[in-house]
Amino acid sequence: MPRIALGLEYDGTAFSGWQRQAHAASVQAALERAVGRVADVAGPLEVVCAGRTDAGVHATGQVVHFDTDAERPARAWVRGVNSHLPASIGVRWAAWPGDDFHARFSATARRYRYILLSDPLRPVLRRDRVAWTWKPLSLKPMQAAAQCLLGEHDFSAFRAVACQAKHPVRTVRELTLHRLGDCIVLDIEANAFLHHMVRNIAGVLMAVGAGERPVEWVAEVLAGRDRTRGGVTAPPGGLYLTAVRYPERFGLPDPAPPPAFA
Amino acid sequence: MPRIALGLEYDGTAFSGWQRQAHAASVQAALERAVGRVADVAGPLEVVCAGRTDAGVHATGQVVHFDTDAERPARAWVRGVNSHLPASIGVRWAAWPGDDFHARFSATARRYRYILLSDPLRPVLRRDRVAWTWKPLSLKPMQAAAQCLLGEHDFSAFRAVACQAKHPVRTVRELTLHRLGDCIVLDIEANAFLHHMVRNIAGVLMAVGAGERPVEWVAEVLAGRDRTRGGVTAPPGGLYLTAVRYPERFGLPDPAPPPAFA
Repeated sequence: MPRIALGLEYDGTAFSGWQRQAHAASVQAALERAVGRVADVAGPLEVVCAGRTDAGVHATGQVVHFDTDAERPARAWVRGVNSHLPASIGVRWAAWPGDDFHARFSATARRYRYILLSDPLRPVLRRDRVAWTWKPLSLKPMQAAAQCLLGEHDFSAFRAVACQAKHPVRTVRELTLHRLGDCIVLDIEANAFLHHMVRNIAGVLMAVGAGERPVEWVAEVLAGRDRTRGGVTAPPGGLYLTAVRYPERFGLPDPAPPPAFA
Repeated sequence: MPRIALGLEYDGTAFSGWQRQAHAASVQAALERAVGRVADVAGPLEVVCAGRTDAGVHATGQVVHFDTDAERPARAWVRGVNSHLPASIGVRWAAWPGDDFHARFSATARRYRYILLSDPLRPVLRRDRVAWTWKPLSLKPMQAAAQCLLGEHDFSAFRAVACQAKHPVRTVRELTLHRLGDCIVLDIEANAFLHHMVRNIAGVLMAVGAGERPVEWVAEVLAGRDRTRGGVTAPPGGLYLTAVRYPERFGLPDPAPPPAFA
């Protein structure tokens, strides 16, 4: 069966996460239902994604694939599927990358953006879009502390207890922080991520930015490989899966510009 | 009774508008309930606003006043009221401008921002925050067409049928359009606005930007003073009340920076 890839944007607020669950709304179930309507085939249709996002986490650059005998033009896989999706999910593009493409296993890197708002008062229009703290944050110590996370490391200290990955070593290729409007934006790219890894990194860097911990503490947390020594897991509403990288031969479209709710 | 002024931010999506109604959720009713809880006084408490926004319209710079004998510090009128408000409404500041202050009648000008997104596909994360059109929009004709609306005019052509204003003459002090990210942002300031005036202006300028009407058409619509000759009323989700101007003697804080969901 031919394999089709889709580019996805979604608002994770009202979903229990990407993954299909028996008694909770998931992005996967909503998408499988909509794709099934357009494919119009009997039997189950499974959609595989590049990065299984958690409850409340958004995406502007999620990539998925599925197999179908249904022959439809790209327009049907984009606008047709969109017409069957809730307003909180949208297909951005459809492509035919070939049968050896796999949304998860062909990916060479994932990229996330975390948007932090430091303000004495809670955000209103941007609630569920930025992570809020009333604590003032200093950018420079956060940038300095982030350096030690670059490269290949055992990220056990930033791994959720529930993480099912076989080993804890990941390679962080980029980790930058900059001011955007009244927010601090963290962009991180790695070959892959452990469960809660970005939010745990954000939590630790926030503690440094708030002056609660020194810059050197982040290297100590990393070296300790012990999750209990890290900070809090930062909230999900500020996190976006912004891009997934694949070898050029698959010919997939570039990801959309990252979100700027700042 | 002493008069207190508050600065407000709200997400109008889930409200039937500012104004209290018997069977629909309004910003006014939610705010009066929350203020009443903090004031802790029996009997009705009425809050008066500077600009009565419609269903789906947002605010980052709404100003309101109410009278109360309750003596509370600013902290109570901000954080205390916030703790009784839904997440979609937030108080930004509290002030004591004096008993001759009136949120509506003391205002010398109101300022609105309208955010337009032109994209082949509907927005997902920014739905209810920007007004979307699939039509490509050219900025320059919109900017040129907007010029004729500056100054004092009879804005009958941009007035909703239901408008209850006594006369249709308003003075537009500023009307600018610029690109911000992938959006076109319209900022407009006038002494006051007729019902639907900003959305009707946005609708007419969108028709010009889409190439459906020539630049000169806007002046013809204005001169015609006939609402039926104008364009469609642009959707509410892209509209924000961003500031209300008052004489300096009232000493009110500056409005927050305007929203940039672009």
